[in-house]
Amino acid sequence: MNNSPIGVFDSGVGGLTVVREIIRELPEESIVYFGDTARVPYGSKSRETVTKYSRQIVRFLRSREVKAIVIACNTASAYALHEVAHDIDIPVIGVIEPGAKAADKVTQNGRIGIIATEGTVRSGTYEKVLKQINPNLKVFLKACPLFVPLVEEGWRYDSVTYEVADRYLNDIMMYDIDTLVLGCTHYPLIRRIIQKVAGDGVTLVNPAYETAKELAGVLYDNGIMAEQSVPEYRFYVSDSVKKFSSFAESILPCDVGHVERVNMEYNQGD
Amino acid sequence: MNNSPIGVFDSGVGGLTVVREIIRELPEESIVYFGDTARVPYGSKSRETVTKYSRQIVRFLRSREVKAIVIACNTASAYALHEVAHDIDIPVIGVIEPGAKAADKVTQNGRIGIIATEGTVRSGTYEKVLKQINPNLKVFLKACPLFVPLVEEGWRYDSVTYEVADRYLNDIMMYDIDTLVLGCTHYPLIRRIIQKVAGDGVTLVNPAYETAKELAGVLYDNGIMAEQSVPEYRFYVSDSVKKFSSFAESILPCDVGHVERVNMEYNQGD
Repeated sequence: MNNSPIGVFDSGVGGLTVVREIIRELPEESIVYFGDTARVPYGSKSRETVTKYSRQIVRFLRSREVKAIVIACNTASAYALHEVAHDIDIPVIGVIEPGAKAADKVTQNGRIGIIATEGTVRSGTYEKVLKQINPNLKVFLKACPLFVPLVEEGWRYDSVTYEVADRYLNDIMMYDIDTLVLGCTHYPLIRRIIQKVAGDGVTLVNPAYETAKELAGVLYDNGIMAEQSVPEYRFYVSDSVKKFSSFAESILPCDVGHVERVNMEYNQGD
Repeated sequence: MNNSPIGVFDSGVGGLTVVREIIRELPEESIVYFGDTARVPYGSKSRETVTKYSRQIVRFLRSREVKAIVIACNTASAYALHEVAHDIDIPVIGVIEPGAKAADKVTQNGRIGIIATEGTVRSGTYEKVLKQINPNLKVFLKACPLFVPLVEEGWRYDSVTYEVADRYLNDIMMYDIDTLVLGCTHYPLIRRIIQKVAGDGVTLVNPAYETAKELAGVLYDNGIMAEQSVPEYRFYVSDSVKKFSSFAESILPCDVGHVERVNMEYNQGD
């Protein structure tokens, strides 16, 4: 039993879809969230840069005495999970392994599609993790760099977004996949369009949901679940608080009270 | 006469459209370019963050002994030109004033449209500068946040880009503008689509071209033009060299020889 908060971080606002699932799954847990809005996005940046940024953020979260860390960003999970987990002695969970495990359970024909940022695709992490789970799986990846800007523009139920989705998904639907992993935390926000384009024969997997369930298991196994606790939610960002708050209010099931700006560049050292 | 290089910077690769015009206009001048690819884009970030980043970059360029600085980014010009120019004793030129002056000359009916990033629109700098030039001008702004990702996806002659442009421009075409400023350095790369949507009655103004002409005047007035010089071009970026080089090769009229990565976060102090 441990009422310390869980640290959650992302390149910006996308990780709030993971926070949303954690709040639903673990309503007694407190959360400290960091969104790196001054340097967003990570999806188009290199492994070295994303790893450096992730380490800075983990150092910050540790200073807030978190009991576990969730990397709520597929790109950072792909590039930096092992480096970060190696640095510290508390549990660290990324979004890729929970998503991959769920995809393996769901698929009937063993053919899995992954849509993600350029960085996540380039990293090869989804293939590697899926092949470790089951070497017979066939995995097909597609980078969808326009999805994040379309979500952030607010065109979540829009004909342009449908047309872009249609074009991106065409490239992997031809491989007869029956399972599609939403491999970027923004994508669940356009899941209706993605489902419509992919068709009813394809099951969507949302790693945010799977990660919240995995987190519950890890807390339980380590004996560090919160008990009889009134949860506190604290949000930190590296750029403007105002813009973050309005996006957060729109997707979280709770009031976004405390949001504070911190300068991540002074929190370095590697 | 002075054969020192000109310093040019941008949030990423967009400023290369300005470099291209400088090379055409001033073929004897050497250039040191910095693209902040680890923190790109600036267009959606706050004034404070963009100003801080701009100051770090100017400090870096000064260490390369540049004789003048061109802020080849509309957002950084909008937020940081005056702060940066105030800090140092060499000429500093942004892209907004040259673009605004050209728009004032071109317009017949005094109704000017500006398309730009969210940051540039929010800053109010284009209106302010245009009203200083001519208080009778009517100025209409529209943020077009999807244009940069569409250009970077390579969809420069694409039906999706046309549809997005049509939707964005509709909002300002209704004001009967006869002049449209391409207020983001990426936008000249989709100027054909923009011209087609805007129609023949609208003259496009490219601030990159106007800035190169302004730079020539400033160098001449200060007696610091290069003479009998074989120009050298050096490129620095804060993220992966490889990705930058291939984009640069595709839009510059010269070989992109020297590209080097620098860590901008250690180059701070404000």
